[in-house]
Amino acid sequence: MFLKNCWYVAGWSHEIVENALLARRILGEPLVIFRLENGTVTALVDRCPHRLAPLSKGRLENHHLRCMYHGLLFDGTGRCIEIPAQDRIGTYLKARSFPVIERDKYVWIWMGDAALADPSKIPDAHWQDDPGWRYKPGYIHYPGASFQLVMDNLLDLSHLGFVHENTLGGGRASGEVRANVETFDWGVRVARKYGNVPVPAFVKAFIAFDGLCDRWQIYDWRIAGNMFVMSSGVAPAGTGALEGHIVPETCVLQSVQSLTSETERSTHYFYMQAHNFRLDDPTIAEELHRQLGIAFAEDKAIIEAQQKVIDEFPNEPFGGIAADFAANQGRALLQRMLDAERGAPVQAIERTGA
Amino acid sequence: MFLKNCWYVAGWSHEIVENALLARRILGEPLVIFRLENGTVTALVDRCPHRLAPLSKGRLENHHLRCMYHGLLFDGTGRCIEIPAQDRIGTYLKARSFPVIERDKYVWIWMGDAALADPSKIPDAHWQDDPGWRYKPGYIHYPGASFQLVMDNLLDLSHLGFVHENTLGGGRASGEVRANVETFDWGVRVARKYGNVPVPAFVKAFIAFDGLCDRWQIYDWRIAGNMFVMSSGVAPAGTGALEGHIVPETCVLQSVQSLTSETERSTHYFYMQAHNFRLDDPTIAEELHRQLGIAFAEDKAIIEAQQKVIDEFPNEPFGGIAADFAANQGRALLQRMLDAERGAPVQAIERTGA
Amino acid sequence: MFLKNCWYVAGWSHEIVENALLARRILGEPLVIFRLENGTVTALVDRCPHRLAPLSKGRLENHHLRCMYHGLLFDGTGRCIEIPAQDRIGTYLKARSFPVIERDKYVWIWMGDAALADPSKIPDAHWQDDPGWRYKPGYIHYPGASFQLVMDNLLDLSHLGFVHENTLGGGRASGEVRANVETFDWGVRVARKYGNVPVPAFVKAFIAFDGLCDRWQIYDWRIAGNMFVMSSGVAPAGTGALEGHIVPETCVLQSVQSLTSETERSTHYFYMQAHNFRLDDPTIAEELHRQLGIAFAEDKAIIEAQQKVIDEFPNEPFGGIAADFAANQGRALLQRMLDAERGAPVQAIERTGA
Repeated sequence: MFLKNCWYVAGWSHEIVENALLARRILGEPLVIFRLENGTVTALVDRCPHRLAPLSKGRLENHHLRCMYHGLLFDGTGRCIEIPAQDRIGTYLKARSFPVIERDKYVWIWMGDAALADPSKIPDAHWQDDPGWRYKPGYIHYPGASFQLVMDNLLDLSHLGFVHENTLGGGRASGEVRANVETFDWGVRVARKYGNVPVPAFVKAFIAFDGLCDRWQIYDWRIAGNMFVMSSGVAPAGTGALEGHIVPETCVLQSVQSLTSETERSTHYFYMQAHNFRLDDPTIAEELHRQLGIAFAEDKAIIEAQQKVIDEFPNEPFGGIAADFAANQGRALLQRMLDAERGAPVQAIERTGA
Repeated sequence: MFLKNCWYVAGWSHEIVENALLARRILGEPLVIFRLENGTVTALVDRCPHRLAPLSKGRLENHHLRCMYHGLLFDGTGRCIEIPAQDRIGTYLKARSFPVIERDKYVWIWMGDAALADPSKIPDAHWQDDPGWRYKPGYIHYPGASFQLVMDNLLDLSHLGFVHENTLGGGRASGEVRANVETFDWGVRVARKYGNVPVPAFVKAFIAFDGLCDRWQIYDWRIAGNMFVMSSGVAPAGTGALEGHIVPETCVLQSVQSLTSETERSTHYFYMQAHNFRLDDPTIAEELHRQLGIAFAEDKAIIEAQQKVIDEFPNEPFGGIAADFAANQGRALLQRMLDAERGAPVQAIERTGA
Repeated sequence: MFLKNCWYVAGWSHEIVENALLARRILGEPLVIFRLENGTVTALVDRCPHRLAPLSKGRLENHHLRCMYHGLLFDGTGRCIEIPAQDRIGTYLKARSFPVIERDKYVWIWMGDAALADPSKIPDAHWQDDPGWRYKPGYIHYPGASFQLVMDNLLDLSHLGFVHENTLGGGRASGEVRANVETFDWGVRVARKYGNVPVPAFVKAFIAFDGLCDRWQIYDWRIAGNMFVMSSGVAPAGTGALEGHIVPETCVLQSVQSLTSETERSTHYFYMQAHNFRLDDPTIAEELHRQLGIAFAEDKAIIEAQQKVIDEFPNEPFGGIAADFAANQGRALLQRMLDAERGAPVQAIERTGA
């Protein structure tokens, strides 16, 4: 069950190349995505209204899309504008199109009721298009997991101490943090602060101090875009970072991570982690990208394994622990939105921190 | 749903090799096919009546088939004639056999009621066994498409201009032809004629003239054998070929193409394209075979992609265009036969040309 | 449908390595198997009671098992004994454990009601832990066959003459034997004796005589452990072996073969064939192991092919022959046990030999 009246990331801007077709499935719907003559992006259902051949096997001709089975030609709205050896064109020969907006290097798409597609509801990812930040864009495909398990994973970063023990975690300490959790209409905010711990591997290449560190991760999960926005940092231990005093040696990072369901059991995962220091040094963004790639493969291995068990034992309950609180809040909030979208009676949800 | 009381091609004659077993599934039924002592071909269900091991894993002993699990021996009618360490043989130990007739280098099989298997209903493919024609036999397996989509494809050759733009089509012109269609009791006849177009790639190696050409494709689709018989030609433009005047430089070809369902979603496709000129030159049949192999791979790519979409969206309707007429006539005729076979009430079908 | 109140082989002792986790599915249940501090073996369901991640992706820490998703720690009984950043531990955080006993180099498991797990019901496999016998342990995985078809195979060794014509069988003669079959409460006993036949390939490397041989196979199939215990021999022809007179040149072998269902359609197959002569020569056990590996691959090919046919044609009956008698007795006995376990009314079964 997908929340349909919601903006999702359909891709990075650089993925939609002039004069090329991108076939991508979103919320279960196969799409063909391409740029029009004015540079804007369009997304059509990826099946010809004639005999259902995939339009993504067709080709662009002057920014119009020709089905290469029987030659029907479509414009960017999905309307058929040419049929070989035929004069009149039935209006039923139309491929559905979806609202698309390009912003912050993301191509946003609205798969629900087009009349409700309000661009002001697109969440802020300005760090991705800001000269004060540098990053390399990332993408992982989860062929075998619901977005829900990835969302759970992100809402409980205690797994840093175990899944990412030798990468993002820097040992067990990242698993022992008691997080502060707040719930809002738009999502959930989690704050984790902990001190006197080893510097994690993923920043060692460009960290400017020796010895232990203080760390924090403060992140918002937003229903809009199924998006995580995280500010995190690694500071020399005892320099007051956890109370807001940032010394120059501190490494501050900004991450945006967006989950878009491909199907009920597969997920597109767009991510980046940006830095705002030594902006003239391209190796930092490269190294952060490389390290995240390693760590996110660790997540993927455990999450897809977890999904297989859940799918085999669908009636087996989860056994709750305290660290689940943020994930449970996120699930409840999302469920409330799903119920509202489907006209189900809505229940209040508790907003206490944990 | 298969039309069962119908002859189908089970294989090319050369595929049924003396003292060898061919395992092939036809209309969903796994078969083992082999030659008897007198050279005729037999086809048995490919499961031992003892404990269902596949007989095709067995071996021929003096043209009898021994199951190599527990050693039961069967004759060409499927009757068990030997059981190790046992004297009496139950008549229930019988593998069903099917009527088979070898003609025109095809092995024909009848999967329905054997009492109705009238050899006179086998359609004519004499070009395959005629010294006036030369060809190389071809076979493609469609693991992921119903015969129906391949039949549709063959009944609307406007796809030549798109799917086969650079091979059989010779550019867009082959997609712009308005075909003449006639429907008969036995099938559908389509005639396509068009002039002043480029010579298509697949005949360039042996065509004897320069400049543009006139072309025609006249073909019958027959319910019997799910078989297409096509006469086609490429003549120097303006030499009157489309009005029946054939100059010596004209290249006339004869094709037979037969579709046999393997399962509801996979198809055997037997084909050949023969020439009647320069019969002493073996490279022409080789080149035609090679070119058709390339073109039929183009069809397979788009048809299997189309099948996937149809299977995922079974309730999505086709949007009709004028070029569908022959395919729709063929489908209606076949449906009428299926309804008759299953005892459903039969409806009249329209016989107008288009 | 599995017989659950029954001991099964979960593995060879050597497979459960100190400080390592073995993930293995038994009777459909995914398990993680490992050794405790005292060297005994434990088996837990392979899913964390927290959020169902597989425990087999975790790690052992001082013989306790840590889930490497969120860090919960479990003891050998499956009880959670540590949760990161949490003081109280709910008793619902428990992974089910199963009775396990190690005996005769086998790790035995009881998947049913633990209160009924009587160690005295473990069948005898002492040849596997006896200085008078030498062997190399073997394992085959059947990813695509029910244990039932493998059990049928073992209960009717007439297939030696066909499936194993060139390996265990030594020609057709092994397929022509009329077996003596007796049925007991605990299982079925089969005796096959035949003389003046060629020496089979699998013992040629260490047989000490020329010419023809006399052979016997006497084996018990036991419900407990779904285990086959076979004494077999190859003696110089005419030296009285079939009447019990064993000359020194005779090759006597002892085999134990145990079938444990992985799922309804996949099977673990543990086996060994031991010799009691020239115990100082390691090449004999190696050669027997190698020969059995070849022969059991022959079984696997035909049995998995048979299973595919059965699964496609579930209503197709078996056609009985005399050689089925032992397999049919075994099936009936097992069915009686299954009915009893499920509380179904039990029917008497005939106990005549054949």
